[in-house]
Amino acid sequence: MAGNTFGKLFRVTTAGVSHGPGYLCIIDGCPAGLELSADDLLPDLARRRPGQSKLTTQRDEADAPEIWSGVFEGKTDGTPVGILFRNGDQRSADYGDIRDKYRPGHADFTFDAKWGFRDYRGGGRSSARETVCRVAAGAVAKKILARVGVRVIAYVTRVGGVTADVPDPTAVTLEQVEANPVRCPVPAAAAAMAELIDAVRKDRDSVGGVCELAAVGVPAGLGEPVFDKLKADLGKALLSLPAVVGFEYGNGFAAAGLRGSENNDAFVPGVTTETNRHGGMLGGISSGLPVVCRVAVKPTSSIPRAQKTVTRSGEPTEILVKGRHDPCLLPRFVPMGEAMVALVLVDHLLRARADRLPG
Amino acid sequence: MAGNTFGKLFRVTTAGVSHGPGYLCIIDGCPAGLELSADDLLPDLARRRPGQSKLTTQRDEADAPEIWSGVFEGKTDGTPVGILFRNGDQRSADYGDIRDKYRPGHADFTFDAKWGFRDYRGGGRSSARETVCRVAAGAVAKKILARVGVRVIAYVTRVGGVTADVPDPTAVTLEQVEANPVRCPVPAAAAAMAELIDAVRKDRDSVGGVCELAAVGVPAGLGEPVFDKLKADLGKALLSLPAVVGFEYGNGFAAAGLRGSENNDAFVPGVTTETNRHGGMLGGISSGLPVVCRVAVKPTSSIPRAQKTVTRSGEPTEILVKGRHDPCLLPRFVPMGEAMVALVLVDHLLRARADRLPG
Amino acid sequence: MAGNTFGKLFRVTTAGVSHGPGYLCIIDGCPAGLELSADDLLPDLARRRPGQSKLTTQRDEADAPEIWSGVFEGKTDGTPVGILFRNGDQRSADYGDIRDKYRPGHADFTFDAKWGFRDYRGGGRSSARETVCRVAAGAVAKKILARVGVRVIAYVTRVGGVTADVPDPTAVTLEQVEANPVRCPVPAAAAAMAELIDAVRKDRDSVGGVCELAAVGVPAGLGEPVFDKLKADLGKALLSLPAVVGFEYGNGFAAAGLRGSENNDAFVPGVTTETNRHGGMLGGISSGLPVVCRVAVKPTSSIPRAQKTVTRSGEPTEILVKGRHDPCLLPRFVPMGEAMVALVLVDHLLRARADRLPG
Amino acid sequence: MAGNTFGKLFRVTTAGVSHGPGYLCIIDGCPAGLELSADDLLPDLARRRPGQSKLTTQRDEADAPEIWSGVFEGKTDGTPVGILFRNGDQRSADYGDIRDKYRPGHADFTFDAKWGFRDYRGGGRSSARETVCRVAAGAVAKKILARVGVRVIAYVTRVGGVTADVPDPTAVTLEQVEANPVRCPVPAAAAAMAELIDAVRKDRDSVGGVCELAAVGVPAGLGEPVFDKLKADLGKALLSLPAVVGFEYGNGFAAAGLRGSENNDAFVPGVTTETNRHGGMLGGISSGLPVVCRVAVKPTSSIPRAQKTVTRSGEPTEILVKGRHDPCLLPRFVPMGEAMVALVLVDHLLRARADRLPG
Repeated sequence: MAGNTFGKLFRVTTAGVSHGPGYLCIIDGCPAGLELSADDLLPDLARRRPGQSKLTTQRDEADAPEIWSGVFEGKTDGTPVGILFRNGDQRSADYGDIRDKYRPGHADFTFDAKWGFRDYRGGGRSSARETVCRVAAGAVAKKILARVGVRVIAYVTRVGGVTADVPDPTAVTLEQVEANPVRCPVPAAAAAMAELIDAVRKDRDSVGGVCELAAVGVPAGLGEPVFDKLKADLGKALLSLPAVVGFEYGNGFAAAGLRGSENNDAFVPGVTTETNRHGGMLGGISSGLPVVCRVAVKPTSSIPRAQKTVTRSGEPTEILVKGRHDPCLLPRFVPMGEAMVALVLVDHLLRARADRLPG
Repeated sequence: MAGNTFGKLFRVTTAGVSHGPGYLCIIDGCPAGLELSADDLLPDLARRRPGQSKLTTQRDEADAPEIWSGVFEGKTDGTPVGILFRNGDQRSADYGDIRDKYRPGHADFTFDAKWGFRDYRGGGRSSARETVCRVAAGAVAKKILARVGVRVIAYVTRVGGVTADVPDPTAVTLEQVEANPVRCPVPAAAAAMAELIDAVRKDRDSVGGVCELAAVGVPAGLGEPVFDKLKADLGKALLSLPAVVGFEYGNGFAAAGLRGSENNDAFVPGVTTETNRHGGMLGGISSGLPVVCRVAVKPTSSIPRAQKTVTRSGEPTEILVKGRHDPCLLPRFVPMGEAMVALVLVDHLLRARADRLPG
Repeated sequence: MAGNTFGKLFRVTTAGVSHGPGYLCIIDGCPAGLELSADDLLPDLARRRPGQSKLTTQRDEADAPEIWSGVFEGKTDGTPVGILFRNGDQRSADYGDIRDKYRPGHADFTFDAKWGFRDYRGGGRSSARETVCRVAAGAVAKKILARVGVRVIAYVTRVGGVTADVPDPTAVTLEQVEANPVRCPVPAAAAAMAELIDAVRKDRDSVGGVCELAAVGVPAGLGEPVFDKLKADLGKALLSLPAVVGFEYGNGFAAAGLRGSENNDAFVPGVTTETNRHGGMLGGISSGLPVVCRVAVKPTSSIPRAQKTVTRSGEPTEILVKGRHDPCLLPRFVPMGEAMVALVLVDHLLRARADRLPG
Repeated sequence: MAGNTFGKLFRVTTAGVSHGPGYLCIIDGCPAGLELSADDLLPDLARRRPGQSKLTTQRDEADAPEIWSGVFEGKTDGTPVGILFRNGDQRSADYGDIRDKYRPGHADFTFDAKWGFRDYRGGGRSSARETVCRVAAGAVAKKILARVGVRVIAYVTRVGGVTADVPDPTAVTLEQVEANPVRCPVPAAAAAMAELIDAVRKDRDSVGGVCELAAVGVPAGLGEPVFDKLKADLGKALLSLPAVVGFEYGNGFAAAGLRGSENNDAFVPGVTTETNRHGGMLGGISSGLPVVCRVAVKPTSSIPRAQKTVTRSGEPTEILVKGRHDPCLLPRFVPMGEAMVALVLVDHLLRARADRLPG
């Protein structure tokens, strides 16, 4: 039961691997009447694409979406939106060494354990290239959210030991985020992060970081009380992205060190709260304040230096992972994270319609 | 679309509120042949129950499960397991003040925003009493896991500023965890935590903390490559519990500060890894090493002191939340967290059966 | 994967067997604000109950529903509606002979094949007593439908060789249906059917029949174009009831003998059609005309005479099925069929909300 | 909530319309290790294709499947199988008249009612061309079924007033079915049917019929006891196909006229039954005998003669539906019906794995 569909009412199903002909993405449940063309998908796809700066991998992925269905005369028609991405430059020769050796930090071994063999040409289904589908679907979701005044924005707040202090997520603009290749809205921190990433790259290593994600304008009342809390669905959505190893919202892990009197947000006339330590969700349901969460992204597992590993038959050996890899995943993670947040919010926006009685 | 079901093949559906007649829990998809009686559910329910020590609330919840279906002659029979819990001591008078005022940190306001009214007698559907169902279902899941050698264990590693260092999660025993009311397996840390919780209680406040959860013996190959990664489903499961505000696995947020060469685990003959920085999951699929994750639990929102809030009509006021509440949720969180981990693992264990061809 | 849940947005989950303590029913996704009490469920439960006349079995099932959750101050509150039914008179001694012999026409053998054993005290999970849950949930669904002007009505149109001609389903009233124990709205036919059933009963045999079901006032536009066509979901719903062996809508099987020029309905100003050969559904989506379908119900499998069968070990033998059984299932089928139609319509009514864009 | 996915464990999602670039089909949940190439899909696609004889429409659909994912080195790899079909000859000019007029018997009006507009270039999402995806997915399902000895076969048993008597469905071979363009295994009946279809075509009309479907070798124990009975899932699957207006299994509607003593099948040593009046399913679970069902297919709604209708604004008018249409849908229905039966059986085959305990 392979789990290649995300969402309950706004359902995204993806297929494809990085070394085949391409990817298929079907969005089922997109309401009719949304103006949509392939051009709408391009900006976020461009942000996700490798080769944007020396801080990101120089692979050239074409990433040109072809909308095959679900749009008629410029608008969605209520039928499933089908999107295709053809794979271009694959350089499968670069991956030859991984046929018989397990790359540390990768899914090579676990796929093998699961199915008894694997597509050794690349990451197979675990390749981050699958996120072209998510980013495209997320762009559709963002267009729906924009209609109800919801804006999703993400940005890098930490790379290795360098952190950026963003006191007010709602004040961050897309322009600030896109002003530098790191996608950190604080210029000084961004410069230090860029320097660190470059140093790490020259050291043939990689580095991790943190991405903060905010959704502004989310109406109060989204999310369901028990298993499908908004926080739970956001957590699942973001943790389903490659390399994400942690998720928190509001005060997050810092709340572990606080007292209730420090962590509670007082309600004030509005009805709203003075502070947003709760990250816009109470009881798993949106409160009307900005939804704010953060994810930890591990350092890229593929590093251009020899690493200790074993062969499929268990013999100890070394592996030198070839190919072009990001020394830090954070800059390109930003649009992926935004996409997943947007998918969750649209899904719950549609679900919330069932809260009140017909008639 | 209310989201009161968890799981895809091992499906748990719950209904009920803390101030009604009781709770209903239906486990659909439990395979036939498992020896099961209500007695099997009692130990974990006892661990979850209020009133175990002065560190936890003194409410007396009966928590006696009645199995109404799904068990025949002492074994599950493949039909849905139906379990009932009757509510006992409700003291609804204690909650009177919350009828018209929003409790800070609670779901009062968001439920109101969602439905236009709410069950003001208690937390309604957001009450942590709903977890009796989860803990009961988790006990069933644990029995299935035990058959394939999987053991789930959780314990407290942080309360406020006090932390416990647990170098090897696989060495922690249930006896160590249950040896003290905090459920921290490191005696010195447990004593300091207990002291802190008691001080906080006397100060009419509450305090947060961290719970670590480990599953030992998980076979390699559980989890699905894309949206239903094991890490994503664990994250959702744990974040669906009340008060959980963060989730991480393996190195987690600490990985944000590391380099790839520090974070990768080298494969060694076995086939296994030297270290378990990856928390037992690579590419979202179990690696055969212990699955290790942690959650941040916020300080109890209900604190016995006046807090600033507003009425339903938006007038500023103060609220003094009555009733008996845990000054720290961590000790009672332990069995809830274990239950959710067990539910996810059984679900993926059943799903993994579809990985190989029939015939 | 046991399949004890029906519906996508209005989800009904049931548990229980006829010889255990009772049944649990959880309705998840019922919108908030519907006036509801246990009394609302009684009329349809009474119509379903055994022992209404000499034409139906004389078993005495209490069928008193207890609503445990989801209703607050007389209205649904958006949380799952939990309903309990306690089993009363069980007379398990009556079923003793079926422990080791397979009853012809029953699920005894197939359950055994599926799980390797079975609850031999009665039909286990295949017992028609499970439909108390469906009828109760259907009564809730009917209340929602009534708010938007939809009325569901079913009635018997055939018993054995006796048929009733009902030219206009929309003209049939509940009073007409309930005017006789057969639940056929044509008095002369009803009398002949009653006579036949009585004769069959005296002959220690049983007889099959046909039930027609109509939903009047269904708005145009319900149903989804491909897999979840309204006709497909109605078919599944009705075929999931015990003893249903056929389903058709509109002209149904008679259309196999017709030409397109005879079977098409011309559109006329309205916009509607002159005739309703299409049974209110075109392309699987409701047309605004009455939804009309029919099901074939087989003769009761349990007949009070010796039948040829085998034991569990494969030895040929005879079986005399004891207990009290309906000589014809049709009269009591009527409320069950109505319930399933109502559940499908409410589900699609809620789903249709996602057809148009937010904002 | 658009419902473009079928199945629970073997999940088929389709997208596309007849007048766009083409169709996308994603099969999620196909186990790894199945030998599969596009060639495997061709035979059934050829049987479904228009233009096979003068009895079927002369449209030329290319129907060349392109497998984009899920197959590695000639075998399925456990990841979703993605299949593309490009649309060729579209002749959209032929459909111009339907832009503003509703075709009788078609979904034009109901789509309009649902979404407020529709893709008027053809049937849009209701076009039978969508079944290329189903037939392709069905071919994959058949390959899996073949591994466990299950064979699915369908054939025409009625066209208008001409019926064929097929006493033993298990004796019907694919060769017999494919021996004539009607796909009726009884040569004399097939000839009469062909004559009738040709006469109807010349009369610018269409005619309905019945298709019988059998699955031989189905192991006992498939299907779930309550909502997901095998009969219910088969009914839904077949009723989700265009033009299907009725479904029955075993004795079906004829059982309405029978007595229990005539309709029950006696068990005989084996363990099996003497007769198969129950169509291979008891209590909704397969009995090990051949699963046998029948569907009624209405006469083609598109007939080449003027029909009374209205415009979108409700004005009375006439419509002459152009384009090339089958005078009888039955011959091409056969592979579509087989595909749906195969999808249901594989889904339940995978689901049945959860019946027994791990460990």
